[in-house]
Amino acid sequence: MSKQPEHPTLLIPGPIEFDDDVLQSMSRYSESHVGPAFVATFGETLSMLRKLFQTTDPSSQPFVISGSGTLGWDLVAANLVEPGEDVLVLSTGYFSDGFADCLRTYGANPTQLKAPVGSRPQLPEIEKALSEKKYKMITVTHVDTSTGVLSELKDLAALVHRVSPETLIVVDGVCSVACEEIAFDEWKLDGVVTASQKAIGCPAGLSISMFSGRAMQAFQNRKTPVASYFASMKNWTHIMQNYEAKKPSYFATPSPQLVHALHTALDQILARPLSERFSRHREVSDKIKQTVSSLGLKQVAANPEDQAHGMTAIYLPEGIKVTDILPVLGKKGVVFAGGIHKEIATKYIRFGHMGVSVTDPRRQDIDHALTSLEDSLVACGYKKP
Amino acid sequence: MSKQPEHPTLLIPGPIEFDDDVLQSMSRYSESHVGPAFVATFGETLSMLRKLFQTTDPSSQPFVISGSGTLGWDLVAANLVEPGEDVLVLSTGYFSDGFADCLRTYGANPTQLKAPVGSRPQLPEIEKALSEKKYKMITVTHVDTSTGVLSELKDLAALVHRVSPETLIVVDGVCSVACEEIAFDEWKLDGVVTASQKAIGCPAGLSISMFSGRAMQAFQNRKTPVASYFASMKNWTHIMQNYEAKKPSYFATPSPQLVHALHTALDQILARPLSERFSRHREVSDKIKQTVSSLGLKQVAANPEDQAHGMTAIYLPEGIKVTDILPVLGKKGVVFAGGIHKEIATKYIRFGHMGVSVTDPRRQDIDHALTSLEDSLVACGYKKP
Repeated sequence: MSKQPEHPTLLIPGPIEFDDDVLQSMSRYSESHVGPAFVATFGETLSMLRKLFQTTDPSSQPFVISGSGTLGWDLVAANLVEPGEDVLVLSTGYFSDGFADCLRTYGANPTQLKAPVGSRPQLPEIEKALSEKKYKMITVTHVDTSTGVLSELKDLAALVHRVSPETLIVVDGVCSVACEEIAFDEWKLDGVVTASQKAIGCPAGLSISMFSGRAMQAFQNRKTPVASYFASMKNWTHIMQNYEAKKPSYFATPSPQLVHALHTALDQILARPLSERFSRHREVSDKIKQTVSSLGLKQVAANPEDQAHGMTAIYLPEGIKVTDILPVLGKKGVVFAGGIHKEIATKYIRFGHMGVSVTDPRRQDIDHALTSLEDSLVACGYKKP
Repeated sequence: MSKQPEHPTLLIPGPIEFDDDVLQSMSRYSESHVGPAFVATFGETLSMLRKLFQTTDPSSQPFVISGSGTLGWDLVAANLVEPGEDVLVLSTGYFSDGFADCLRTYGANPTQLKAPVGSRPQLPEIEKALSEKKYKMITVTHVDTSTGVLSELKDLAALVHRVSPETLIVVDGVCSVACEEIAFDEWKLDGVVTASQKAIGCPAGLSISMFSGRAMQAFQNRKTPVASYFASMKNWTHIMQNYEAKKPSYFATPSPQLVHALHTALDQILARPLSERFSRHREVSDKIKQTVSSLGLKQVAANPEDQAHGMTAIYLPEGIKVTDILPVLGKKGVVFAGGIHKEIATKYIRFGHMGVSVTDPRRQDIDHALTSLEDSLVACGYKKP
């Protein structure tokens, strides 16, 4: 059925399994990065991103830059905040700590609002924090890949607009864009940064982001120079605008193959209503979470309303180690990830369920993974309650 | 013969035409970035880079990071130089100016030693500059993609070591690595930064670099913190060392597909002696330059010893515009690039001759391009002298 050779199914929280057509686009013959064919492809890709982020506001600005998802943090930290400015960082795990580190590197002054492992800062504490100090920006990790904790964006954004309307709202959407709903305009977000290799379903290597007119204005109004060269909006904005207007433009060479693959992935995503895509991820996630519970296992994200829909972080039963179960799963052709949150790393595994593994009805990835999980636990000596 | 569909031959100074097997590696099925199979591939890739750069010194450190070639400048500027430190930038065109801009962004104080368009700063003036001020670093664009000017590295490095032995020698090798000789250890270079899509022959999307033990020491001994997050050696060194030791490690997700393609490209390059590869590029370049002369055309790089061997920048005859000839060449299936050096941009075209178009005996790319160039000039009304 698939053109890909037989291989273990990659069900980690990114990179995910990719569609055949997306992978074929990676092999596209070489084209000039400033030739009309590629310029059109890149321009369409940027326009499609507006649809994925649900923004029609012409002042929103998409960026697609060669790099890892992490580069999105530099884009935010080097362009939208100035040295000494305060940023409120909502912490739900490993990745929020990283974002804070990045902000600090560029001279900003992050205050981390930390929640206990497996939960997220609550709206009342966020409101309190926002009313105690003036923050240039608030950042939130939509889904923390280390814990599977989902943050509620809509209510959070409404709160920020009510309590501290001048504060920019920036979302780390690396593990959420294209599997969790993000209504960029409606929720009045100012920035969402993500990567290609998760729910968008394109191989790793692209930093993808969307910024509001207000965020672009904050960048334009900087009093201090931008503190990065490769991650400088000053160097890239004009280039992205030209590509989208189908005009050749050059700052640094983009990757035509990766951009073609992203174009294919976005084409597939936008061929059906986004609402359908989000509810499909929700439906499959619910099923996974039910199975996990029925196996007597707990999730790292304790409350159902804090649980992501594109991944599940599962505590292992007492006595079963990550290093015991992952190889057993591997022999069944299922690749899950170990833990990476330092406080609990040895105690849990992570199951990614995003993109084609969830949306392609021809694929049995999820059912096979659930059966394999149960069988592997049993093989490791676990007795189901 | 080729598995790629019929397409115009891309003969710009990067991206270049890619080998079928390299492009097929881009379609590789998804693998975990920390799984043993990919870790081994990445580790081997890093070790192969040591061979390509001709370094056996264990203190040399290779880096492969998702990004454009430009990211290499940030790596140098954010890690090896501290605010206020002086850098001597040898300028041979557009790309040296970019490197200087990047250094300035991170607080360094670049002094540009500019040569007239089409030439390069001469050793006596470099010696004079080095003896007048203490420079932390000297940078040189090995081949400036905007002009096709080649800098002579070996004598330059010897000069720097004689006159200012503490000065780090950093080479922008974006348009030279894998087509011009670079003997990293023998010439005692401290850094070479490059990209995947030129003579290395792997699609764009990877910043590739090599730094000496001395450069790594300069980074370790910084008095000020590293001024970038994504381009921080503090974040990456350890990761690269782990990958090379075949140990899983994580800072930001690499691109398994691009790294696989780089592995394939390096395998192909290293299957034959590097000396053969360099002389083949030289031989084909000589033939191209002879043909250009016999057509009565001049090169931007005036002196034969300043001419690169992987590209040729050619002044058009009076009365023929870039916008006239490129479409005529395009119809013959040959893609050349226009000019990008701002002082002469409308007056010249650039012909890239790197990688498989030069080394694969089954390909007729170069001969076809030379015939097409002559025919296109004639079609534009040019009369050969």
